[in-house]
Amino acid sequence: MQGQVDLNADMGEGFGPWRMGDDAALLDIVTSANIACGFHASDPDVMAQVMAQAVARGVGIGAHPGFADLQGFGRRRIDMSHPALGHLVAYQLGAAQGMARAVGGQVRHLKLHGALANMAAADAGMARACYAAALAVDPEIIVMVLAGTAQEVAARDLGARVACEIFADRAYEDDGQLVDRRKPGAVIHDGGLAAQRILAMLEAGAIITETGKHLPSRIDTICLHGDTAEAVTLARDLRVALEGAGVRLAVFEGGR
Amino acid sequence: MQGQVDLNADMGEGFGPWRMGDDAALLDIVTSANIACGFHASDPDVMAQVMAQAVARGVGIGAHPGFADLQGFGRRRIDMSHPALGHLVAYQLGAAQGMARAVGGQVRHLKLHGALANMAAADAGMARACYAAALAVDPEIIVMVLAGTAQEVAARDLGARVACEIFADRAYEDDGQLVDRRKPGAVIHDGGLAAQRILAMLEAGAIITETGKHLPSRIDTICLHGDTAEAVTLARDLRVALEGAGVRLAVFEGGR
Amino acid sequence: MQGQVDLNADMGEGFGPWRMGDDAALLDIVTSANIACGFHASDPDVMAQVMAQAVARGVGIGAHPGFADLQGFGRRRIDMSHPALGHLVAYQLGAAQGMARAVGGQVRHLKLHGALANMAAADAGMARACYAAALAVDPEIIVMVLAGTAQEVAARDLGARVACEIFADRAYEDDGQLVDRRKPGAVIHDGGLAAQRILAMLEAGAIITETGKHLPSRIDTICLHGDTAEAVTLARDLRVALEGAGVRLAVFEGGR
Amino acid sequence: MQGQVDLNADMGEGFGPWRMGDDAALLDIVTSANIACGFHASDPDVMAQVMAQAVARGVGIGAHPGFADLQGFGRRRIDMSHPALGHLVAYQLGAAQGMARAVGGQVRHLKLHGALANMAAADAGMARACYAAALAVDPEIIVMVLAGTAQEVAARDLGARVACEIFADRAYEDDGQLVDRRKPGAVIHDGGLAAQRILAMLEAGAIITETGKHLPSRIDTICLHGDTAEAVTLARDLRVALEGAGVRLAVFEGGR
Repeated sequence: MQGQVDLNADMGEGFGPWRMGDDAALLDIVTSANIACGFHASDPDVMAQVMAQAVARGVGIGAHPGFADLQGFGRRRIDMSHPALGHLVAYQLGAAQGMARAVGGQVRHLKLHGALANMAAADAGMARACYAAALAVDPEIIVMVLAGTAQEVAARDLGARVACEIFADRAYEDDGQLVDRRKPGAVIHDGGLAAQRILAMLEAGAIITETGKHLPSRIDTICLHGDTAEAVTLARDLRVALEGAGVRLAVFEGGR
Repeated sequence: MQGQVDLNADMGEGFGPWRMGDDAALLDIVTSANIACGFHASDPDVMAQVMAQAVARGVGIGAHPGFADLQGFGRRRIDMSHPALGHLVAYQLGAAQGMARAVGGQVRHLKLHGALANMAAADAGMARACYAAALAVDPEIIVMVLAGTAQEVAARDLGARVACEIFADRAYEDDGQLVDRRKPGAVIHDGGLAAQRILAMLEAGAIITETGKHLPSRIDTICLHGDTAEAVTLARDLRVALEGAGVRLAVFEGGR
Repeated sequence: MQGQVDLNADMGEGFGPWRMGDDAALLDIVTSANIACGFHASDPDVMAQVMAQAVARGVGIGAHPGFADLQGFGRRRIDMSHPALGHLVAYQLGAAQGMARAVGGQVRHLKLHGALANMAAADAGMARACYAAALAVDPEIIVMVLAGTAQEVAARDLGARVACEIFADRAYEDDGQLVDRRKPGAVIHDGGLAAQRILAMLEAGAIITETGKHLPSRIDTICLHGDTAEAVTLARDLRVALEGAGVRLAVFEGGR
Repeated sequence: MQGQVDLNADMGEGFGPWRMGDDAALLDIVTSANIACGFHASDPDVMAQVMAQAVARGVGIGAHPGFADLQGFGRRRIDMSHPALGHLVAYQLGAAQGMARAVGGQVRHLKLHGALANMAAADAGMARACYAAALAVDPEIIVMVLAGTAQEVAARDLGARVACEIFADRAYEDDGQLVDRRKPGAVIHDGGLAAQRILAMLEAGAIITETGKHLPSRIDTICLHGDTAEAVTLARDLRVALEGAGVRLAVFEGGR
């Protein structure tokens, strides 16, 4: 069985006077932090603060670029050309690198946010435009992808270091898609149950779907959420259960 | 006499559908380009375009951060704490570095824009907050300062590589301040006259004021403007006159 | 033959330090001005200036709301719910009314901009969401619609005062769509020719397509462009030709 | 003794995905709501929601304009010319009026926010620029002013309907300024104590300072805060105590 895995969560999602989630609590649980870059959330002050906390705890820092849409939190689709998508990602990755260096850290990985991530998961051309720009900025950046999607196809095709992500709290369809949130059982609310499923997947080296089908996949990192108190509790319970089962939690290295 | 000098101008000051100045014309004249970073002007697409042009012409690329105020073009003073100023600069410098790398270039220098520059020229604490953050991002960055101001004091105090800037088209008071624009003779509109003055200053190794007083100073770079057709003409005439006088135009190295 | 028609153009499309088009020239040609409301272009200063000029010339003022996307100039589609579309329009219409009153004028009409207009021309539900909100703000507002599109269907269905618009410089397909810009003859560059076509349409009381087919329609207003010097010239030539043919140019009243 | 007074609080201070304060709780306590207009906080969706709630409860709606600075929450001073200040206020007031009409309400009053309010409290010229623009938009708007400041001077000078505001939770210096927050006793945390003080001031028809001095003033409205749970509790306790003392809580009419 796979003896090590990474836990990641989105962070730095405040903006100006507004807070979102409990970054400090999450930073005690995860091994990688996906930090918003100021386009859909965050600002230079928020980034500096959360990155400094991540450095202090040895949590891996990732750039988490999204569409330029604070009001929509990067969740609204915006039509952009492939070159413009590349510029969007390069700018935000560069900004994150600058902020990380300013607080004594470095950006290890990149993960797309929101509508940008959803579109790239379904459209390898879009994913490629985003990732190629990121690799032009830093050829060693580790691209965190949704396992089995067009994101992974594009990142592998570019020869990037890749970290494959699965969700701790969501059920999977047989085609690798997430089960629609409106269906019963689509969302897992219990940390112990989530841990059982993750342990089974780590053992199988595969995503295990609702019907029990195995979709072989690398599993480098597990996506946690921290936007509610329940989510933080689930994340903590999952961590404890994984460690109890002998899984080492550590930041991924990424594989080509 | 000093045999070499740099010519710099602000560029990349369009935003979205809007253009400003003639970047292509300026890039054939200057040796360094100060490129807006998306807070007071520019956006990732504009930055990518002008940086790619700069790389193609061998023009030195600089980050030109300003206050987060597109509507005010960074010309309105905004109260910010010193840490927030540092984050403002680190973010924009990082973004510029990302964009430069994405198009095969690199950021060599940093120059503050607009109200941020004016405030830092008068307040060494502010200047220090900005420059210290930039040096944390890149210890080798060359800090372009207004010669003789608090900007220069702060940059030298931090041990930064410094490039001292004088204006081609402005007269100086005996205390090193620019003559108020509303006074006669404050602004020079003729390229030949501007060249004469610059040549005299390069020969003297000093800023020469309206009264003829010499203020000894390094003169690493000369600030040109490109926002009007006349400004571009003056810049071109100045370049021709300097070259005619045997001055080599080349990007500065900066000195500590 | 219809003896009177309105000429309209988009205006107030600068932002902060950036200009676009020649509003002063256009205001001497048109009888109605569609003024950007600060979301895709314009700001309170730009609005105040162009509205004061419109008031001084007796040009009818319209609110021209668009998506909240300055960088994309409102030309990028953004997914929004129908209630959110209504709020988007109500806010911008209210702001335009405030600015108009502040300079002694009033907002007479509303015209959607860019991607918002294109989407509403094809989707009556979207158009209805936008127009219903505008009518809640002002039941007497005149809704300027692209003749024959879902915009017109929605506005009539709501019982709004409607002004139907045709293009001076574009050819029409037999289904009432504009001929694709990439096809020869799609765009008319000559004011005299544009005037001939408009006069024929006013006489026919119909849009006349490329093949000569007549699509009966009210023709309340003719859309002009002012973003290039050529466009301003075409607009001026068209005005002269229409007046020469005895057509009175005056702001529309709108009909239910 | 004055038998009636208004209670007001700032509301609608969320933005996009971010919330601030508990608007629903406050709307059950106050009689007037100062609603952010999208420049320092709020957006069209937030405004529509809170205004609809205010209409449903019969709470008076006010426009609460601030500087265009979401990141700084309108708390950072921005240099603007007097005409630009007027445009800033006219735009936001108009937008608020549009949103209010869209949900079946109307804007009754105007109160400046944050740094804009602080600057106008000390500079009658600035206050006049803001209020004159608001009155041009709506001559019947009631201007809510900090009693005894340059705000009140300017509003009275313009002949506006004025509502004078005092703070429930702050101590006053003898010159009418608020006691610095860092001094002991500057901020009142107990609703009963706040009510006692307010009742004494209503009886005296004067602001009563820390030393007991009386500064005669109209007292039309009392400013409450709702950004913390404690603040909401204080506001509720104050309301109960005032009602228990026979004071009627009702929206102000404003006096010239």
